[in-house]
Amino acid sequence: MQISYADLKKAAERIKPFIHRTPVVTSSAINRLAGRDVFFKCENLQKVGAFKFRGACNAVFSLTDEQASKGVVAHSSGNHAQALALAAKMRGIPAYIVMPDNAPSVKKAAVADYGGIITFCEPTLVARETTQSEIVARTGAHIVHPYDDVRIIAGQSTAALELLEDYPELDLILAPVGGGGLLSGTALAAAYASKNAKVIGAEPCNADDAFRSFNAGFIIPSQSPQTIADGLLTSLGETNFPVIREFVGAIVTVSEESIIAAMRLFWERCKLVIEPSAAVPLAAVLDGKIDHSFRKVGIIVSGGNVDLDGLPWQADVPKT
Amino acid sequence: MQISYADLKKAAERIKPFIHRTPVVTSSAINRLAGRDVFFKCENLQKVGAFKFRGACNAVFSLTDEQASKGVVAHSSGNHAQALALAAKMRGIPAYIVMPDNAPSVKKAAVADYGGIITFCEPTLVARETTQSEIVARTGAHIVHPYDDVRIIAGQSTAALELLEDYPELDLILAPVGGGGLLSGTALAAAYASKNAKVIGAEPCNADDAFRSFNAGFIIPSQSPQTIADGLLTSLGETNFPVIREFVGAIVTVSEESIIAAMRLFWERCKLVIEPSAAVPLAAVLDGKIDHSFRKVGIIVSGGNVDLDGLPWQADVPKT
Repeated sequence: MQISYADLKKAAERIKPFIHRTPVVTSSAINRLAGRDVFFKCENLQKVGAFKFRGACNAVFSLTDEQASKGVVAHSSGNHAQALALAAKMRGIPAYIVMPDNAPSVKKAAVADYGGIITFCEPTLVARETTQSEIVARTGAHIVHPYDDVRIIAGQSTAALELLEDYPELDLILAPVGGGGLLSGTALAAAYASKNAKVIGAEPCNADDAFRSFNAGFIIPSQSPQTIADGLLTSLGETNFPVIREFVGAIVTVSEESIIAAMRLFWERCKLVIEPSAAVPLAAVLDGKIDHSFRKVGIIVSGGNVDLDGLPWQADVPKT
Repeated sequence: MQISYADLKKAAERIKPFIHRTPVVTSSAINRLAGRDVFFKCENLQKVGAFKFRGACNAVFSLTDEQASKGVVAHSSGNHAQALALAAKMRGIPAYIVMPDNAPSVKKAAVADYGGIITFCEPTLVARETTQSEIVARTGAHIVHPYDDVRIIAGQSTAALELLEDYPELDLILAPVGGGGLLSGTALAAAYASKNAKVIGAEPCNADDAFRSFNAGFIIPSQSPQTIADGLLTSLGETNFPVIREFVGAIVTVSEESIIAAMRLFWERCKLVIEPSAAVPLAAVLDGKIDHSFRKVGIIVSGGNVDLDGLPWQADVPKT
C-alpha cells in the first residue's frame, strides 16, 4: 500500500495547528430511529465548513518552501476551492483557483474572501484544465487535485482518526463518496487505527458510479449525474479506487427523497446545518441499507455549505 | 434580593445531571463584522432545543416528593411546554400541558413525544388559565409558570453561570427578553459571578414592551405584538421586572430585518440552526446598538426550534 499509517499520523500532526478538532454529536431521537448508536463527526463545523480543509491543508503544508513559493492551483467550484485558498493564505502563498464563470456568486465571493486569485473560464472540463495548465505554465504553481492525490487522502483520513480516538469501540464508519478522497482516507484510518471498524461508502442512487465501479472492479465514470448531493457528482479518482476496493466493505445507494428526509431530520434534531451530500450516510442508515449487526456507527458529516435560498423541502425548489 | 447566589448555585447543582453543558462557539467572520470578540452560548443545543429546559428542570426537581407526586401543569404552546414535559418525565411524574387547539401540529407532537398530557382549549388567555385551574382542581398538580417564578429564574441563570465559568473575562452578556426569565437569570448570574460583566437585554422593536417598561419604571404590557421572534411575544413577569430594573444595564431594540439577517448569518457562518428569538442579541451587535467599549461579548443563544417550512428568507413567507 502506497499510503502508510505513518503518512496518516504525519498528516494529522502537520495539520493539527490549523484545523478545528471537530466535535462528535449524538441524538437520542436519531438513535431510536436508527435502532443503534450513531456518532456524528461534525466536519460541517470544520474551517470553510467542510472536511476538504484537512486535505488541502496537508497538501499545502507538505510542500517544500521552494515549491510553495510559486503558489498552488486547482480548478474547483466547490469546497476544495475555498479549502485550498484558506490553506494557502495560512501558509502565506498564492492560491490560483479556476472557476467556471457560471459558478454561484456566493461561491466566488467565498473563495475571494479567503484570498484566492480567481480565473474564470467556460463551464467545461476542457476549459477548466486548459486554464489550469496556462496558470501552471505562467506561475509555476503546484497543482493540488481535490481528491486524486495521496496527500489529500492522508489529510481526509484525519477526521476518522479523530473519531476513532474519541470512540474506539465503533464497529462501522460511514462516509459519502464522490471522487473518493474522504472514503479512501476513512478506510485507511479504520484499517490502521481500529481493531473492529469496517467502512462503508454511501452514494446517491442518481450518482452511483462508485457503487457500479466497486462491483465491476474497474472505474465506470459517472454520466451527467443529477442529484441534490452536489458534492458527490464526480467520478472516482485513479488513486482512490484501489484503496476503496481493498479497504471498503461495501458501497450502498440511497434515493433523493431519503437524502432530503435525513438532512431535514438532522437539522431538526441536532440543530446543525449540513449540506445534502453530508446527509447521504444517515439516509443509508435510516433506509435500512446498513446491516443491524453494526451497533455503534460513526458517520463523517462531510460539510455544511448549503444554499439557504434553495432548501430542498421548500415548495418552490424543484426536486432533481 | 429574594434570589441569592446560593440559590443559583443550588439550581446549577440540582439540574446538572439532567441538562447538557452546552458548548460555546465563536466565528472569526462574525467577530470581524462585530468589531470585537463574541462568544455564543449554544442553548439551541440544550435538551428540547432551548434554555427553557434549565428552568423547568430546576422547578420540577425542587418539588418535595409529595408535591411532585401530583404532577406539574402549565399552559404553553412553546418551548416551556416541551421543557416541562421532559423534566417531569425525567422525574417520573405527570406533566399536564394546556395548549391552544390552533397550536402547530409539530408542537403538539413534540409535547406528546416527551410524554406530556395535553389538554386543548380555545386560543385565548382566559381559556388557557381556566383550563389550567380546572386541571389543578382535579389533579392537585403544581403550576410551573414559564418565567414568573424564582425557581425558573434560578434555573435560567445557569446558562450564564456556565458561560462565565468558561469565559470569566467577558465584559458584557446579551440575552433576548420576552417574559424576562432568561434575562433576569442572566443578570443575577453576572451580578453574582462576575467582576466585570454587564448585562443588556435585546428585544424586537415590534415587541418592545420590556424596553418601554424598563424606561418607564413600571410594567407596560405588550399589545398584540407582531414579530418573527415568536419566543418574545409575552410581557414582562412581576417577579422578573424588579430584577431586571436592578441588575440589567439597558434594553435595546432591533428591527425585523436585522433579526432575519443575523439569524441567516449565524446559520451560514456557524452552521447552527437557531430560532429568530435567539438571533435578536446578535442583531443588536451587528446593528451598532451595543457600545464599542464592550470588547468581549457573550450571547445566550436561546433556542433552535424553528419551522423549516417557514424560514423568513424564503420568498413565499410573508414578513411580519
